[in-house]
Amino acid sequence: MNPIWLENTVRAALHEDIGYGDITTEAIVPPEAKATAKIIAKATGCIAGNDAAKLAFQLLDNQINYQVVATDGSEVVHGDMVARITGSAAAILSGERVALNFMQRMSGTATATRQAVKAAAPYGTRIVDTRKTTPGLRALEKYAVRVGGGLNHRIGLDDAVLIKENHIAVAGGIVPAVERVRARVGHMVKLEVEVEHFDQIDEALQAGVDAILLDNMDPATMRRAVLHINKRVIVEASGSISPDQIAEVAATGVDIISMGRLTHSSPALDLSLLIEID
Amino acid sequence: MNPIWLENTVRAALHEDIGYGDITTEAIVPPEAKATAKIIAKATGCIAGNDAAKLAFQLLDNQINYQVVATDGSEVVHGDMVARITGSAAAILSGERVALNFMQRMSGTATATRQAVKAAAPYGTRIVDTRKTTPGLRALEKYAVRVGGGLNHRIGLDDAVLIKENHIAVAGGIVPAVERVRARVGHMVKLEVEVEHFDQIDEALQAGVDAILLDNMDPATMRRAVLHINKRVIVEASGSISPDQIAEVAATGVDIISMGRLTHSSPALDLSLLIEID
Amino acid sequence: MNPIWLENTVRAALHEDIGYGDITTEAIVPPEAKATAKIIAKATGCIAGNDAAKLAFQLLDNQINYQVVATDGSEVVHGDMVARITGSAAAILSGERVALNFMQRMSGTATATRQAVKAAAPYGTRIVDTRKTTPGLRALEKYAVRVGGGLNHRIGLDDAVLIKENHIAVAGGIVPAVERVRARVGHMVKLEVEVEHFDQIDEALQAGVDAILLDNMDPATMRRAVLHINKRVIVEASGSISPDQIAEVAATGVDIISMGRLTHSSPALDLSLLIEID
Amino acid sequence: MNPIWLENTVRAALHEDIGYGDITTEAIVPPEAKATAKIIAKATGCIAGNDAAKLAFQLLDNQINYQVVATDGSEVVHGDMVARITGSAAAILSGERVALNFMQRMSGTATATRQAVKAAAPYGTRIVDTRKTTPGLRALEKYAVRVGGGLNHRIGLDDAVLIKENHIAVAGGIVPAVERVRARVGHMVKLEVEVEHFDQIDEALQAGVDAILLDNMDPATMRRAVLHINKRVIVEASGSISPDQIAEVAATGVDIISMGRLTHSSPALDLSLLIEID
Amino acid sequence: MNPIWLENTVRAALHEDIGYGDITTEAIVPPEAKATAKIIAKATGCIAGNDAAKLAFQLLDNQINYQVVATDGSEVVHGDMVARITGSAAAILSGERVALNFMQRMSGTATATRQAVKAAAPYGTRIVDTRKTTPGLRALEKYAVRVGGGLNHRIGLDDAVLIKENHIAVAGGIVPAVERVRARVGHMVKLEVEVEHFDQIDEALQAGVDAILLDNMDPATMRRAVLHINKRVIVEASGSISPDQIAEVAATGVDIISMGRLTHSSPALDLSLLIEID
Amino acid sequence: MNPIWLENTVRAALHEDIGYGDITTEAIVPPEAKATAKIIAKATGCIAGNDAAKLAFQLLDNQINYQVVATDGSEVVHGDMVARITGSAAAILSGERVALNFMQRMSGTATATRQAVKAAAPYGTRIVDTRKTTPGLRALEKYAVRVGGGLNHRIGLDDAVLIKENHIAVAGGIVPAVERVRARVGHMVKLEVEVEHFDQIDEALQAGVDAILLDNMDPATMRRAVLHINKRVIVEASGSISPDQIAEVAATGVDIISMGRLTHSSPALDLSLLIEID
Repeated sequence: MNPIWLENTVRAALHEDIGYGDITTEAIVPPEAKATAKIIAKATGCIAGNDAAKLAFQLLDNQINYQVVATDGSEVVHGDMVARITGSAAAILSGERVALNFMQRMSGTATATRQAVKAAAPYGTRIVDTRKTTPGLRALEKYAVRVGGGLNHRIGLDDAVLIKENHIAVAGGIVPAVERVRARVGHMVKLEVEVEHFDQIDEALQAGVDAILLDNMDPATMRRAVLHINKRVIVEASGSISPDQIAEVAATGVDIISMGRLTHSSPALDLSLLIEID
Repeated sequence: MNPIWLENTVRAALHEDIGYGDITTEAIVPPEAKATAKIIAKATGCIAGNDAAKLAFQLLDNQINYQVVATDGSEVVHGDMVARITGSAAAILSGERVALNFMQRMSGTATATRQAVKAAAPYGTRIVDTRKTTPGLRALEKYAVRVGGGLNHRIGLDDAVLIKENHIAVAGGIVPAVERVRARVGHMVKLEVEVEHFDQIDEALQAGVDAILLDNMDPATMRRAVLHINKRVIVEASGSISPDQIAEVAATGVDIISMGRLTHSSPALDLSLLIEID
Repeated sequence: MNPIWLENTVRAALHEDIGYGDITTEAIVPPEAKATAKIIAKATGCIAGNDAAKLAFQLLDNQINYQVVATDGSEVVHGDMVARITGSAAAILSGERVALNFMQRMSGTATATRQAVKAAAPYGTRIVDTRKTTPGLRALEKYAVRVGGGLNHRIGLDDAVLIKENHIAVAGGIVPAVERVRARVGHMVKLEVEVEHFDQIDEALQAGVDAILLDNMDPATMRRAVLHINKRVIVEASGSISPDQIAEVAATGVDIISMGRLTHSSPALDLSLLIEID
Repeated sequence: MNPIWLENTVRAALHEDIGYGDITTEAIVPPEAKATAKIIAKATGCIAGNDAAKLAFQLLDNQINYQVVATDGSEVVHGDMVARITGSAAAILSGERVALNFMQRMSGTATATRQAVKAAAPYGTRIVDTRKTTPGLRALEKYAVRVGGGLNHRIGLDDAVLIKENHIAVAGGIVPAVERVRARVGHMVKLEVEVEHFDQIDEALQAGVDAILLDNMDPATMRRAVLHINKRVIVEASGSISPDQIAEVAATGVDIISMGRLTHSSPALDLSLLIEID
Repeated sequence: MNPIWLENTVRAALHEDIGYGDITTEAIVPPEAKATAKIIAKATGCIAGNDAAKLAFQLLDNQINYQVVATDGSEVVHGDMVARITGSAAAILSGERVALNFMQRMSGTATATRQAVKAAAPYGTRIVDTRKTTPGLRALEKYAVRVGGGLNHRIGLDDAVLIKENHIAVAGGIVPAVERVRARVGHMVKLEVEVEHFDQIDEALQAGVDAILLDNMDPATMRRAVLHINKRVIVEASGSISPDQIAEVAATGVDIISMGRLTHSSPALDLSLLIEID
Repeated sequence: MNPIWLENTVRAALHEDIGYGDITTEAIVPPEAKATAKIIAKATGCIAGNDAAKLAFQLLDNQINYQVVATDGSEVVHGDMVARITGSAAAILSGERVALNFMQRMSGTATATRQAVKAAAPYGTRIVDTRKTTPGLRALEKYAVRVGGGLNHRIGLDDAVLIKENHIAVAGGIVPAVERVRARVGHMVKLEVEVEHFDQIDEALQAGVDAILLDNMDPATMRRAVLHINKRVIVEASGSISPDQIAEVAATGVDIISMGRLTHSSPALDLSLLIEID
């Protein structure tokens, strides 16, 4: 991940939480007090976010030592230690919430991704994310998806083309829509088209797309689409696919399942910080 | 909500998603094309975030008209219209994802809060949030909690005092901890202390706190604590209380239940944007 | 104080003063030249701002050593040394003005506060600041007030409630104003009401406020108010109270005197930097 | 003044004061309520800051009307109206403090400058400011000095040269110091040298400076210096000159008196906002 | 182009140029003075940057009218009018330099691109840019390349893969390098490999890349490579290709020629602003 | 140069180029891999930008060692080493493009300046830059001009006065224009007037300007102007003077030649980074 981006984001989060100062800790904890803290998992899941948590402490006090115990991508169970932090007690107390806010959220996404990846793996299907991310945190959430074993769909509106229903309507068809785009974008840009109906597939193939997104189709239609496309382009299944449906969708032979819920609805992984004042 | 803050946040989110430009829409949709769009609820819930969604469109084109149909706080069911947007087709297509990313997340929090509020209401207990918010979005999430009928706990580390276990350990007891804080903070700052054990309550009361947080206590102990405290100070219950447990906890007589999950684990409310090109 | 905030502020101040570069120093002082400098008090006062001054030098050259001689809160007289700085002569010369601009201003506020605190102390009355601070420097100025022995009133419009005359007019009375606010704010927010006339006090007490601000009342009325309120809530005196009037106002028995002038009209404390090139 | 700079600064000040929201006003004042407000002078002085005050309201609600009554530079007495503001009651209440914080501070500087200018005028001497400004507000404060009738010394370290005692020491004399600078700066940069002793003047003149700053000299020495320099270069008097000393210093014949106190120690001009809810 | 990005960039440029204020114009031009101005081409070229120039004036005064005469992409000759601007004389004078600085630079890149595109067109070869752009202006420069008829190579390091010599060395070959990348990136990311020698081509083809960059090869080798690759993947020629060499390189049959000089070395197109005060 | 400014600029450039992360390098290069790299000149020129290049690497990994071989201002020929960089292979690969983008552009400007300086030197004429700089990079480009041996014209619109044709038209002549400006600016501001015709010179001299800019005059007229002005004020020649014309213009006796092309049209100096993985 881009370290410049990460530092900006963690710095802003500390500013947001601490504001004018941590009045409780400033009043009670002497600057010279030292502490040892452990981040402990309170549930089963996949860890992501050690770099963010580390920075949350070190931007407050660059003498803090943050030792990773469970690296990003590790699977933990209740009681496992994730990291050990030593140094200024005040900085540890003031940075605790921001560190955990990052790590719990990122681990929640990594955990949900890991589960989806495992469900899809037997069928050779890959799990990808979407642009349904938290405003301001897309880089972190897409990183968490990768940590969980998923892959990233396009980053934003500028790096790849996804022609949707309304674009097709404006252009008057898939072929003219693709032509307009091909005239504007370079050779390093991939182009995917979203199809709502089976009978749009041939037009998409004829237009020369790199990938076809099957939007909200039932498994039977997806299977028919996969057979018809026959490896000529990548096939992506999308549309509010729940964890329970992954295996069924993957079994249709689609190459990829994209899941908005990985980033917009994953519950945080429960983690806590146990602190011992030295 | 602070309009300066809101604009900064939505502007940054648009920057994040659009990057160098929406290459699909720029290539296909002529600048003069107009469209009409509707935000439609795909699930039952409580709406929050109209101001953010409106700005997501209007910062791209200040001629966009955004008409609120379901005001913040309204309860909607599948199929209800939330807002109607008319204007530049390109701006509507480019702003769609950011508008929905804000509104789905905020409505998810409002919906979860509304459910908790309803469960606690018969007992006169109020629901409050925590600092377990998404980095960068605390103002929006705390607003969503209020829209759902909850109240806000402290904003950050600077506006109110919460003395936790480790602060007590450093100070050598609740009384000295409270004394140190009282010497530093003014008359407009409230002071709450977190107690782990029933027998800390008397020390807290003696210290003259404004509120006591009962951390991870079982309902029986909470009830005992409520009776013992006997309205002398505000009593808050905290500690991973699930929606199913709200009624039981509220029945103990606590004044307030704080729930981190409102902001860290609420699934997004499913909303979609239907666009018709004029 | 929040170190993230402090660094942002000092960094911006250096940018403002240095702009494209310190053309005098760049032209004359070789990068390898070293110097020793002393911050010296030129007047009697209370020091505040060592952290800001230190950063003003260290952000230009992280090898600069800044040794605090008079810690924040110390009282100094003409000729006392406040700090000793050693390192790059160029960085010391380029950072001098910004370092002093922070420290003189902050020490000016601390000095005025210390005087007020001493005048009020015999009566057990505390001195607090207001929101009449320098745009952009509120955190530093409120810190300086604490260094001087004062306490902080609310930080801003978001962390505590102060119901003023116009709010009362809109709501149609103190009681309905307080009710509207209680319905919106949580248990960690304090609520004060500003009263212009003695006969508003009973309504304020009945409304259940945490504090009453006596606005621009004469000492006799204040004394009557204090007796009438009789410790039921905190009593704050406000309204252009000059240093000469503090004792008289404090003697009325009010708990708190708030003084805008601490932050909007305190003259800077005269400090100078004596530099010796090594 | 640069309008981009002004908007950034006022926007940041509103963000600082309002934070998460004006909880009092949001709770009490309905969005549709209108008000009329007047900024009224409570003391005699010179007004500066209408643009900043106007923006403080209009950035919160662009429908606010701000009518200037006393333009910047006007002299007012107790009771004079400075501006009339009409529009959203909530925006007026939320913006009040920031608007006044800017205008009181700027008017304070303009007022002190106006007094100094009047004292120096009979002698043909001009008053200028220094770099002893409030961090972050230099542009506003230098504007206020101009409004008061003063002129601006250099903006910062990058736009003009001021060779001070330590620069001379490093270079080994005024002549070599000036030579080093001349080799680095272009033809649009003025060069002033600070002299501590009368006998440095000839070296300064020989070095070909544009101006000589007489640092902390007594009036007799200044007069001697003025006679000796005999209009060959601009002569500036500096060094904690108090308002009472202006006439005496000006009478020595110096061209310019620079006064740090205009920006670091001017008390705010007392202004208040009277609001009537419509 | 992303309007949020454009506004941020133009705003920063105005801040940079105007600083504390345009002292010449503020002193001389009354706020009510109006002017009419024309941007005139002083050389033959292709125009780009009307949106940036327009904003440079309108951010200073939103009443300025900017009428495009030569749209982006138009070819102009000496004397042609590019745009007509009417409104505040002061704003036109203060914004002139920033408007022209954007438009001259962007038009310079568009002009150089247009020339290259024309030279390559007979061979069906496309011209693309590189990441050798001006720090801070990549979005504008890549836009100018498109205006000139070129296409964009990848935006940055995050949106597409380019495996270079050193990556191959670290991975131990093209095949393992491609494998490592394929395991990390999703289906919307294209992958190109840079080859230095003819005999690396087969390994690249075997690895399954989307495009091959022929780095610094002579035309004969390029032609051999094109024949050997035989349309299986896109072929890009790169390596300091001068305008004179375009036809020769294009004639080898490569699909794409990338030219860093479009953005790092194009001279500005000479434009001037003629102003008439009304 | 201001180190705060430099760091902000390089940080932003890295953010722009790396975005969400360098996906090629992250996938292929292990974090522990080390490399040694050399910046090598591929053409003859004058080096500028070592500080920027160094930061481009060190902001990604503060353990990177950057050893300057050709200091800023050195003249290099094809094959010369400019700097040696050792440390993290991933950071070197990710920072390469930004480091070179800064250094090539700055060295291009330094090289063009050096050539112009040499052409003008025999006549005692100095070369200066203009405000025709790249938006966002003025400080770096003006630094590069100094490195090349040139001097800087004014920084921006706020630090010096340049009265142009339109200002004269508004004021109704040079004398009233100068008078208006003198009334607004202090003694540290220089004032230059642009004249289009020989017969404006006397009015300029009478007005008491510091410098006269001869705009687009032919050499014969310039020579006549120089003789007429006769050292009373600085004389600057301006107006699209090409490198070939420098000697002829300098021979007219003007003090200064200003050249916009140094910053708006200098081609980048060709540099490359050779990396060896350890």
